[in-house]
Amino acid sequence: MTLEKLPRNKTNDYTTEMAAERRAIVEKHSGHSLFHTGQFSIPPAALPGNIEGFSGIVQVPMGFAGPLLVNGEHAQGEFYVPMATTEGTLVASYSRGMALTRAAGGITTTVIDDAMQRAPVFVFKNARAARDFGLWVTAHFDEIKAAAETTTQSGKLRDIEQYAASKMRWLRFNMTTGDAAGQNMVSKATHAACQWILAQKPADLEHFTLAANFDTDKKHSVVNNLHSRGKRVVAEITIPAGLLEPIMHCSAQALSKQRGLSNLGAFMAGAVSNGAHFANGVAAVFLACGQDIANVAESSAGFVYTELMENGDYYMSATIPSLIVATYGGGTGLPTQRECLESMDCYGTGKAYKLAEIIAATVLCGELSLASAIVSNEWVSSHDAYGRNRP
Amino acid sequence: MTLEKLPRNKTNDYTTEMAAERRAIVEKHSGHSLFHTGQFSIPPAALPGNIEGFSGIVQVPMGFAGPLLVNGEHAQGEFYVPMATTEGTLVASYSRGMALTRAAGGITTTVIDDAMQRAPVFVFKNARAARDFGLWVTAHFDEIKAAAETTTQSGKLRDIEQYAASKMRWLRFNMTTGDAAGQNMVSKATHAACQWILAQKPADLEHFTLAANFDTDKKHSVVNNLHSRGKRVVAEITIPAGLLEPIMHCSAQALSKQRGLSNLGAFMAGAVSNGAHFANGVAAVFLACGQDIANVAESSAGFVYTELMENGDYYMSATIPSLIVATYGGGTGLPTQRECLESMDCYGTGKAYKLAEIIAATVLCGELSLASAIVSNEWVSSHDAYGRNRP
Amino acid sequence: MTLEKLPRNKTNDYTTEMAAERRAIVEKHSGHSLFHTGQFSIPPAALPGNIEGFSGIVQVPMGFAGPLLVNGEHAQGEFYVPMATTEGTLVASYSRGMALTRAAGGITTTVIDDAMQRAPVFVFKNARAARDFGLWVTAHFDEIKAAAETTTQSGKLRDIEQYAASKMRWLRFNMTTGDAAGQNMVSKATHAACQWILAQKPADLEHFTLAANFDTDKKHSVVNNLHSRGKRVVAEITIPAGLLEPIMHCSAQALSKQRGLSNLGAFMAGAVSNGAHFANGVAAVFLACGQDIANVAESSAGFVYTELMENGDYYMSATIPSLIVATYGGGTGLPTQRECLESMDCYGTGKAYKLAEIIAATVLCGELSLASAIVSNEWVSSHDAYGRNRP
Amino acid sequence: MTLEKLPRNKTNDYTTEMAAERRAIVEKHSGHSLFHTGQFSIPPAALPGNIEGFSGIVQVPMGFAGPLLVNGEHAQGEFYVPMATTEGTLVASYSRGMALTRAAGGITTTVIDDAMQRAPVFVFKNARAARDFGLWVTAHFDEIKAAAETTTQSGKLRDIEQYAASKMRWLRFNMTTGDAAGQNMVSKATHAACQWILAQKPADLEHFTLAANFDTDKKHSVVNNLHSRGKRVVAEITIPAGLLEPIMHCSAQALSKQRGLSNLGAFMAGAVSNGAHFANGVAAVFLACGQDIANVAESSAGFVYTELMENGDYYMSATIPSLIVATYGGGTGLPTQRECLESMDCYGTGKAYKLAEIIAATVLCGELSLASAIVSNEWVSSHDAYGRNRP
Repeated sequence: MTLEKLPRNKTNDYTTEMAAERRAIVEKHSGHSLFHTGQFSIPPAALPGNIEGFSGIVQVPMGFAGPLLVNGEHAQGEFYVPMATTEGTLVASYSRGMALTRAAGGITTTVIDDAMQRAPVFVFKNARAARDFGLWVTAHFDEIKAAAETTTQSGKLRDIEQYAASKMRWLRFNMTTGDAAGQNMVSKATHAACQWILAQKPADLEHFTLAANFDTDKKHSVVNNLHSRGKRVVAEITIPAGLLEPIMHCSAQALSKQRGLSNLGAFMAGAVSNGAHFANGVAAVFLACGQDIANVAESSAGFVYTELMENGDYYMSATIPSLIVATYGGGTGLPTQRECLESMDCYGTGKAYKLAEIIAATVLCGELSLASAIVSNEWVSSHDAYGRNRP
Repeated sequence: MTLEKLPRNKTNDYTTEMAAERRAIVEKHSGHSLFHTGQFSIPPAALPGNIEGFSGIVQVPMGFAGPLLVNGEHAQGEFYVPMATTEGTLVASYSRGMALTRAAGGITTTVIDDAMQRAPVFVFKNARAARDFGLWVTAHFDEIKAAAETTTQSGKLRDIEQYAASKMRWLRFNMTTGDAAGQNMVSKATHAACQWILAQKPADLEHFTLAANFDTDKKHSVVNNLHSRGKRVVAEITIPAGLLEPIMHCSAQALSKQRGLSNLGAFMAGAVSNGAHFANGVAAVFLACGQDIANVAESSAGFVYTELMENGDYYMSATIPSLIVATYGGGTGLPTQRECLESMDCYGTGKAYKLAEIIAATVLCGELSLASAIVSNEWVSSHDAYGRNRP
Repeated sequence: MTLEKLPRNKTNDYTTEMAAERRAIVEKHSGHSLFHTGQFSIPPAALPGNIEGFSGIVQVPMGFAGPLLVNGEHAQGEFYVPMATTEGTLVASYSRGMALTRAAGGITTTVIDDAMQRAPVFVFKNARAARDFGLWVTAHFDEIKAAAETTTQSGKLRDIEQYAASKMRWLRFNMTTGDAAGQNMVSKATHAACQWILAQKPADLEHFTLAANFDTDKKHSVVNNLHSRGKRVVAEITIPAGLLEPIMHCSAQALSKQRGLSNLGAFMAGAVSNGAHFANGVAAVFLACGQDIANVAESSAGFVYTELMENGDYYMSATIPSLIVATYGGGTGLPTQRECLESMDCYGTGKAYKLAEIIAATVLCGELSLASAIVSNEWVSSHDAYGRNRP
Repeated sequence: MTLEKLPRNKTNDYTTEMAAERRAIVEKHSGHSLFHTGQFSIPPAALPGNIEGFSGIVQVPMGFAGPLLVNGEHAQGEFYVPMATTEGTLVASYSRGMALTRAAGGITTTVIDDAMQRAPVFVFKNARAARDFGLWVTAHFDEIKAAAETTTQSGKLRDIEQYAASKMRWLRFNMTTGDAAGQNMVSKATHAACQWILAQKPADLEHFTLAANFDTDKKHSVVNNLHSRGKRVVAEITIPAGLLEPIMHCSAQALSKQRGLSNLGAFMAGAVSNGAHFANGVAAVFLACGQDIANVAESSAGFVYTELMENGDYYMSATIPSLIVATYGGGTGLPTQRECLESMDCYGTGKAYKLAEIIAATVLCGELSLASAIVSNEWVSSHDAYGRNRP
């Protein structure tokens, strides 16, 4: 048996009818209904650029965690944080952390770096030619920057990192991309810059390719940990000793001990993060807010750093080195996603840092809540109570 | 201003009315409508165990890639693969890879390992006591297994890895979990096993905690790469030389050269994967099929291995060492998600390996398509054509 | 100009005369004397098996650090620890740490694992054949073990770890090797075992190679961190609060804070060790005691774990996961090296664990001393005082 | 029993008599002779700054590998390469690689980066203050550079990398250090620079420490792989197809296949190097030439990159990203070590790059030789022939 290719309407592919036609073919083939996937309020005409072969929707339940109190530079005040998830306990657990941090005066958040990357590689006759090319690139940065920026109005080429081995030179282009995530913007700008470079006929160049795993796109890497990808954000708070026991049923001493063990466990295991579950918070807000959920791969890595104060208070911070967020473009404009962004006043121009701060604060709340649950031995019982659908 | 806590109905919290009530409060606070998030066909009564504070839904567009031809042990034949995404080009690119691999006779897939983990740590008076405890655990495996399995009908304790440093002993419990992802199942079973262990009063035990970053849950790690988490799956194919040029506009030689550069780039960058974008395929199928999207963190890591054959054919494989999939429980039973699973006959008992195989094959198609696009210099132009919403 | 090949005497190459003849040629070519390299007391006849083309010696200065007080299972009591180095401050710094730990009652040491590895890889037609081969290996462990052990009297095949990707199966043979480091013993035994395996004609086997970077020999790796290579040793001590200030000029609180920063620094940097300078102690004892100094690559990795006790005492441990030591074979029998081993009663049969314990304890002393020097701001000044030859 | 502290002569500690006195005490304690360790031709008066408590020497056998043909920018022509080792087969194996590469026209070597590091960390009240401090550092680079360079004549502060997490800012000072390895030079300069910084009273500074594992000294790290430590050197060569079979008994195709497996093995294992045994060559030349052998920890990491040419030739390169070498200071001035350096005309001013090139070329020869031995199945037999002392 050979399945037919699903039909495509060259003049108007994004319609309710085309979606229904495709579903009908799949239904016929599988013998199962696609009723619910056909129930959508979003207009198909909005979807070009977001998906090909649009056939329906997936409905993911959404709840608001919070309120979350943030003392950011861009996010200030209280927020209901939309989280889309199918995993019981998640919203409740983050809300618990938000209750604690609200009682403690809120979370301080800071965006400390910001750039999106594309990293072409140039292969030369030998290492010497590659090294000389590196010097040439540094000397011609202004022209390269000009070439890159011809392709974009909002993107700016900030700098070019260079990485070298053998006869290769990777150039890691760092661009600021405004409120867009910017992967495509940077690809186009880097492509244009490389076309200009190639036109200068670099001496002894053997080979060129626009990407070869040094970006590093859609995957965690130490280079991202070190040099950021997207926003680098810190959320931090000092929890008074007196709040931990009543809300979290544990002490700062117990959390500090758990942190020491988690640090070593992550280090030995070769883990990308010494945190407990950054991914849960990142993924749920990403999904609600129209972010690219494939970027959970990069955006879920991070560092927890804590200090047990002499007075028994507990300083805790979460650093997300590669948080890729957008408040414009991609999935942010789709109706439900846009509404979720708007519910925090995070849609559109000038809001990307604000969203980054809210996500980092959310992640910190999740770290506090899960660490406390483990320490107080409430972890399994809470999942029993909330997560009954999750074997 | 202090935001009110969103209301909760203790007797019946999962209703259309409660969702509306919560949205109304958020709308009032933000001044923005939550109209579309309130448009859902899924019954709120189905949601306990999936989310707390249910307030509406996010609608994510879905398309079918394919047909994908799989020669698996569990997935056999052609499939339309549901992918939910907001990122233009994605479905088209995977479909292109599926066209190529279908022409080449289909993708061979194999699940080569399967276990879910929880890794408690026991801290002793000193390293000697910790080492002796390790020996004791090995000697009492049967009793520990019995204690663990009291909590579950489908989960089986396969073995316990041990990791040691200082005065600690991490026990990494490996359980098979049937068609569920099984994180909670393993947490409960491990908790029960540890309670039994603790009741034996291990000599010189100072401290115990149920988790300390050696699982490693919701984050990539080398230990997962080495010892799997969830399913370890391989997808592989040999592409005849004659197919590459017409469909992919490049040669096996060019792909092989790109692979060499990508291998080194990933290695130098300290990346978790030497693949190009496993995360895209994994995330889109996960979202369509009710998987926990936070597990994109672990499930997007992997290895590409290729061989340029003497006759110019190209062997290519993708190995996903930590693919966490379920066809039962979690979000799989929600209406749209279940429909997507059913469209591939992947819902319910005995289908988890089949789903794992389809995802691995899908990932391989994405790797082939993107690598070819980069090599043939069509990458930027294709995103221009399809991804117009993505700056 | 073409340099001549240095002469070789086929019947008796290890003589004072041959060494002199070779030096004379090099002297003539370079125009520089090789006087001191010709001043040796070790008999050339002892050197076959240790070097080819013996031409003289390098004289490395040696001092004794200590006394070191060890409460091991194999090393018990006080030791003068021979350290060969050209780096000023090193011996003094380790001695300082030894003074502190002696005052604190000595260091507890424990060997918690022991195995040497070789990891051949078998490449099959596809992943399925590779997986089936893995099962076959498990089922035939006894025969494989028998085949391996035909080549050695002291080596025992403990177990075989399996690692899988694509169509490959790496088998990581773990052998105990008595008091030898055992790399060659394991290579030979693994080679024999693989010859037996190959003779069984595994189905669909395409390719075999005896090593492909999964051992991992002469380089650090996470797999070594997790599963040991050579001896896995822990050294630990609790330092009373009252001792730190007088000897180290710092407090446990200050050391604990430094440890937190060092943990995060190492984690972010992607370092193989969160310790400060395991390599210094390991290298200096290795050199004095005839160990293979190339194994500093693996043996210098490790984990520091500390606890700040409520009473102000400081628990500190160093774990070396891949300490490759021998008290027999290799360079251990050379005259000066053997004397150094004998000075600690560590030469010959049954002494490898003792040597491992002494090295681990030494490393811990170095960690304590350097951390204290950094914290108390004495680091630079001490190097000024002792390290005047080191710009 | 309590061992006595070994005596120290405050006015003149570096004498034959003091060394003998110390040995006598150790001999008495151990009951074993230290005869050979007392046989040295190096004058004790030369040793202050190299060791404390000088008690004798270790004699390590040395042989010359080669001749090695290098087409470097600093090393040009043929060299006998002094290697000190106790590991049989090593010199022979490197010599074999040198014979091959000499026949192939020699190895091209290039130093592509050069800097030594110290990385203090500044801890602030919060992430915002840390970020602002980072900007301040950039703005005041000239003054920081001036402060650093007051302490050294040859060291120059090239740039300062910044790494951030939580409320910390690590500054990674990169200095060029002439022909010295420069760790102490950089420590002193960084210390002086930090004193100047601290005197400016950075706002909201809470804590400062001169080092916290971001250098990363005496241990491998990804940050070193990316940004070098010491010299970054490449050695590369194209081996004509016709030479491999007669000298190495294998084909370029076989080497290329082995390379693919070794790349994946290293990647999966989380190894610091995808090479086979950089450490052997690095350690043996380091030891002969008075380098700090503890730096084998950093200097043994690296990257092998190869290409199988269409005509069957084999391009192979070795990149050492963190090769720490000196031709001045440290152990380089000791008599035997100096002689070894002089035998290659590598002692003193202006020779560090030359030495780096020779070591990189040597490493490449070792990679070629071992890879060939594995591929041609001669590895075990050659160790049987040469390494009879090594169980």
